[in-house]
Amino acid sequence: MPFIRESIITTLHDDGNAHIAPMGVHETERGLMLAPFKPSATLNNLMRDGTATINYPDDVRIFAGCLTGRRDWQTFPTDVIAGVRLHDCLAHTEIKVHTREDDELRPRFYCEVVHEQTHRPFHGYNRAQFAVIELAILVSRLNMLSADKIDSEIEYLRIGLDKTAGDRELEAWSWLMEKVTEFRNKQTETLQ
Amino acid sequence: MPFIRESIITTLHDDGNAHIAPMGVHETERGLMLAPFKPSATLNNLMRDGTATINYPDDVRIFAGCLTGRRDWQTFPTDVIAGVRLHDCLAHTEIKVHTREDDELRPRFYCEVVHEQTHRPFHGYNRAQFAVIELAILVSRLNMLSADKIDSEIEYLRIGLDKTAGDRELEAWSWLMEKVTEFRNKQTETLQ
Repeated sequence: MPFIRESIITTLHDDGNAHIAPMGVHETERGLMLAPFKPSATLNNLMRDGTATINYPDDVRIFAGCLTGRRDWQTFPTDVIAGVRLHDCLAHTEIKVHTREDDELRPRFYCEVVHEQTHRPFHGYNRAQFAVIELAILVSRLNMLSADKIDSEIEYLRIGLDKTAGDRELEAWSWLMEKVTEFRNKQTETLQ
Repeated sequence: MPFIRESIITTLHDDGNAHIAPMGVHETERGLMLAPFKPSATLNNLMRDGTATINYPDDVRIFAGCLTGRRDWQTFPTDVIAGVRLHDCLAHTEIKVHTREDDELRPRFYCEVVHEQTHRPFHGYNRAQFAVIELAILVSRLNMLSADKIDSEIEYLRIGLDKTAGDRELEAWSWLMEKVTEFRNKQTETLQ
């Protein structure tokens, strides 16, 4: 079982604009592995350029934002690859694809690290950030889960949120909860 | 509502030996705030020295270990205060108490940062690490929760664990689960 880093991948579109997407990066014996879904912009960009940046922010609004139509986060040029990194991240890793394995659903890209840099110190775990990450995963799977399951998970996650959140975590949570409400309203309309 | 950093506090006993304890550090307008329980070694050491180190490791075995009798983690001398920091941490903050507020249960120590250093880059969120942190909190409250509540929380947390853990997270989880089993066996004995 590989260790998975929940992070933000930045790649370049063919017009040079940045594409920002949350993704789980697998630590494997063959190097860091990305498995973007087919079809997706990250997949296209990785196929074309063979490079990407893994960003490690501690602002969970970036994760929640990418799932709720807020993809406009400031970027800087990278140091070694021709790409970009998030302006606001604790660290970033620049990677180059060395092996590609095709797949119907999720092609796998095994990568080598060509550069890594730390920008700010990690300040410990935060339960509210975890709650937001888990809610983001839940939001990306709403149509696969029962209403009861969604309710009970949200109820559980809200405990850690209420006890340990700062403003950024509350804002990220509210964006995701809007998405949950929107999904439910649509379901109700369909049922009527 | 303050943002809380789940971290590892290192202080010195009066014989100069290190004391290592997990604690939530509050980010407040008056600086970082620690509220150790009465009585506790961290409280005694803070009262005597007025300094402490906040460590931010990404090895959750240190959190699980402190709750399961495994407190022997390597330390290094700190840079500015007379204290120690964890050898294995991504960053650490050295703090000095500027205001103390007494309390029956949890005295509050408001602190200024006198030094901070990054040792290794943050590599993103990991759901298994958060599952371990949540299980650690659960283990510290076993006698306050119903068996059903404990079961359902463990079942939920195990999803993220199974999908994203590396060896360190699995080991930390197993230490904590031993504690849960031990607690339940004792309860069964009492009931018989």
